[in-house]
Amino acid sequence: MKKTVAIDMDNVIADIETNWINLYEQEFGVRVDKKDLLGKPEDFAFPDPDKARSLLYKPGFFRNAPLMAGAVEALKEIQKDFEIYIVSAAMEFPNSLLEKHDWLAEHFPFISWKNIIFCGDKSVISTDFLIDDHLKNLDFHKGMPILFTAGHNINVNKHTRVNNWTEAVALLKENIEVV
Amino acid sequence: MKKTVAIDMDNVIADIETNWINLYEQEFGVRVDKKDLLGKPEDFAFPDPDKARSLLYKPGFFRNAPLMAGAVEALKEIQKDFEIYIVSAAMEFPNSLLEKHDWLAEHFPFISWKNIIFCGDKSVISTDFLIDDHLKNLDFHKGMPILFTAGHNINVNKHTRVNNWTEAVALLKENIEVV
Repeated sequence: MKKTVAIDMDNVIADIETNWINLYEQEFGVRVDKKDLLGKPEDFAFPDPDKARSLLYKPGFFRNAPLMAGAVEALKEIQKDFEIYIVSAAMEFPNSLLEKHDWLAEHFPFISWKNIIFCGDKSVISTDFLIDDHLKNLDFHKGMPILFTAGHNINVNKHTRVNNWTEAVALLKENIEVV
Repeated sequence: MKKTVAIDMDNVIADIETNWINLYEQEFGVRVDKKDLLGKPEDFAFPDPDKARSLLYKPGFFRNAPLMAGAVEALKEIQKDFEIYIVSAAMEFPNSLLEKHDWLAEHFPFISWKNIIFCGDKSVISTDFLIDDHLKNLDFHKGMPILFTAGHNINVNKHTRVNNWTEAVALLKENIEVV
């Protein structure tokens, strides 16, 4: 049986950071530099956190997010040796549910609906690996937690870190074992 | 820490069977008797399975489903001693995602969004108990699987069976242990 890998969406396969910066500029006329987001909680990196947060509820926010570099190729490669589950804490934003489903269907048609999970708390998701950018998810994972670098987590010193999809694929390949 | 209970939606807290019979009659003019559904796969219990299945894709099918008898009171009671997760294989019907979220918000406002999971395959959901009407979910559960009686599963002889919410509450209460 293949080992299982849970993979987060936002800032892991979907480039929410870039999307958020672009939409903030479009709506409120202020361009935030990616460097200014480093080491801060995501919404607090914007001049007006409430305005920034309001963008998450706008139709299209998740549907139109760009891909993280190399994500599609990486997941195709990982799928050869692992069972992939996409696990997103989408339930906080109910309007994102269908948008996230449709986004996955467009960009990752090789991932079955059976392997998609939209949840809140990820603590009851039991897989061999979890690739995520948030400690709130990684800290409670029963398998091997893998921290995917995002602006907000650059100062975190917990868990094995990967900076991009090339590193993530390499790390998983080191851990292939048929159980 | 409280033990965790995963609870399915369709035919467990939402009365999909009754809803389906009513809508089939409304759309196609044929009233199916509940007795005729006994021991058969759900869609094949209708005169025209394809037509029956088409109803699942109609807007409002899940949003307007009635409650299973005693479900609200039972979950309030269970929540005193257990951490409840609602786990629905909603991903097969993407248009049901928001409908199911809204249905839960209306009927079970005491269940947090953090405790709702919409998925496909439930095998990576790890809880101490799973209450479900389908073997495809129960057979792969790592905790204690509990079969909730539905028309289609009356001839199944696997797992501990509960026939209604009164029995489900009693069974869980016998298994309270603070771990």
